[in-house]
Amino acid sequence: MTIRVAVLGMGSVGKGVLEMISRKDLGIIVTGVADSKSGLIDPKGLDIGAVLSSKKTGACGNPSITAKDVVACADYDILVEVTPTNAGNGEPALSYMKMAIERGSHIVTSNKGPISLYLKELNRLAGEKGVLVRYEATVGGAIPIMHTLGNGLAGNEFQALYGVLNGTCNYILTRMAAEGLTYDQALAEARELGYAEADPTYDVKGIDAAIKLVILANTIWDNGASLDRVDITGIDLLTTDALRLAEEKDCTIRLIAEAFPERGVLRVSPRIIRKDHPLVFEGTLNAITLETDMAGEITLIGKGAGSVETASAIIGDILFISSHVRSN
Amino acid sequence: MTIRVAVLGMGSVGKGVLEMISRKDLGIIVTGVADSKSGLIDPKGLDIGAVLSSKKTGACGNPSITAKDVVACADYDILVEVTPTNAGNGEPALSYMKMAIERGSHIVTSNKGPISLYLKELNRLAGEKGVLVRYEATVGGAIPIMHTLGNGLAGNEFQALYGVLNGTCNYILTRMAAEGLTYDQALAEARELGYAEADPTYDVKGIDAAIKLVILANTIWDNGASLDRVDITGIDLLTTDALRLAEEKDCTIRLIAEAFPERGVLRVSPRIIRKDHPLVFEGTLNAITLETDMAGEITLIGKGAGSVETASAIIGDILFISSHVRSN
Repeated sequence: MTIRVAVLGMGSVGKGVLEMISRKDLGIIVTGVADSKSGLIDPKGLDIGAVLSSKKTGACGNPSITAKDVVACADYDILVEVTPTNAGNGEPALSYMKMAIERGSHIVTSNKGPISLYLKELNRLAGEKGVLVRYEATVGGAIPIMHTLGNGLAGNEFQALYGVLNGTCNYILTRMAAEGLTYDQALAEARELGYAEADPTYDVKGIDAAIKLVILANTIWDNGASLDRVDITGIDLLTTDALRLAEEKDCTIRLIAEAFPERGVLRVSPRIIRKDHPLVFEGTLNAITLETDMAGEITLIGKGAGSVETASAIIGDILFISSHVRSN
Repeated sequence: MTIRVAVLGMGSVGKGVLEMISRKDLGIIVTGVADSKSGLIDPKGLDIGAVLSSKKTGACGNPSITAKDVVACADYDILVEVTPTNAGNGEPALSYMKMAIERGSHIVTSNKGPISLYLKELNRLAGEKGVLVRYEATVGGAIPIMHTLGNGLAGNEFQALYGVLNGTCNYILTRMAAEGLTYDQALAEARELGYAEADPTYDVKGIDAAIKLVILANTIWDNGASLDRVDITGIDLLTTDALRLAEEKDCTIRLIAEAFPERGVLRVSPRIIRKDHPLVFEGTLNAITLETDMAGEITLIGKGAGSVETASAIIGDILFISSHVRSN
């Protein structure tokens, strides 16, 4: 059996997903794609190599076919929604997802905006249509945190979670501590290496980590968490002196996201922690620790970003749905 | 919908599983139990509190009902097999499992013996009957490694794995390094705290870690790994001097299990590693790092043993099968 997907978005994540689908024999065929300027539809399955080649030289497809056309008209079991995030209102991704659910399709997305804002509503709509909304790629890159929450640790109650959810900040802090760089020097280095965006506000002010924390909290506790209820402090005002003082005590500083629902805590802030703590590691990695009633503390560490790494999460979700569909 | 289980074995794991089933509302009923001296069968579901109380004062049930009777006659969807491990031939657990599969029941087990010796055969028999054999609890205690391999990282190829798979050894090495204890002193301490068995041979000679490595290798690569093909060195000959020398170079020593199938490496041995490596942590924790083609390196850390922690793994497997059965 094959599973048919339509892919919206041809940035680094979309291209990574298409490359992995074409390279591996996973039983996935692509019946529609769209970028911001064009689209392609073929119920028999597109030639992914050709799509990727034409994307290199411009638009991925026919300029008279829009993303909306692909959502409305292509034949697919799963909409793979990997367009750029709009953290303000989740659009246009949110509308695409709702339209696909109405058509009876499952959703797999890396898009933090609609998931952090409208997870409950999307799950309700999906429940009515008997389809699934999966979003492993929204948090922790390649780390299979959503699978762990939903299946690996099924039966556990989750008392708390904390983690390093933003690789850019972790890189900057690593470099400030290791080399005595100032914040501006470390940020410039991160930009040169492609670890920070031209406008790094979302990362360094802790907003990206806070959005991921909201997604995790709503997934685990369904407690109506939202960005405006997260207590956020970024790393952009941290001094080299603060890091040096921490280092003198065998500690360092990391941007930690944490949720303790019983105490109403939902917080992202720079924290002084011992260097031998599992959440202290170098570079752009992410990590999440879950406190549970049976399994105790479980920590997952892995790459928090990257085209192929995010594709791993997307494909894991596609295959999960595929095996679910198959067994129905 | 409820799922019916029969539980064989009333040691620390079996009692933990029964306690968690009775305390939580998971839709699981227990229709049979057996320890080495007695058994109980009730198709309507046993009173777990009464079973646990009578176990405290002796046998858990009726001395004229054996484990074999429970396997052959109780009404259950899943056989939860948690009797003590026989690493030599996997018996009697292996025969119980086969008998249950013949009856069309799924298997959930913490029993390393039969899984390390006969996984392929058990999977073949289960495939013929359309049932599942799950064994999350055999490796890494509460760490959901099997779920991660089978679902969370689905679609990935696994190039290598390495990990700390024995908490007893990790505790002894931690104490030798931190306090300059000799091996014998640290082992005595581990015994006092219940971290080491009266006969610690399996742990300190690396055999327990090697058995877990065999289970992981066969799960991932189905490559016919067996204990006699693992290159094993234990920690029982390590000196305090060796640890001191490592510490002087900002390193320490850990018992690492590793598999690199392309190079034919399957090995358990004490290794000198940098203290800031993710596999260096204190106490009885376990950790596993997977090298994959898409997700990169993923590391999972958690408690490697314990009654409730192992129950977490068992219950995760029961619920996985329950949702699988439900969707069929």
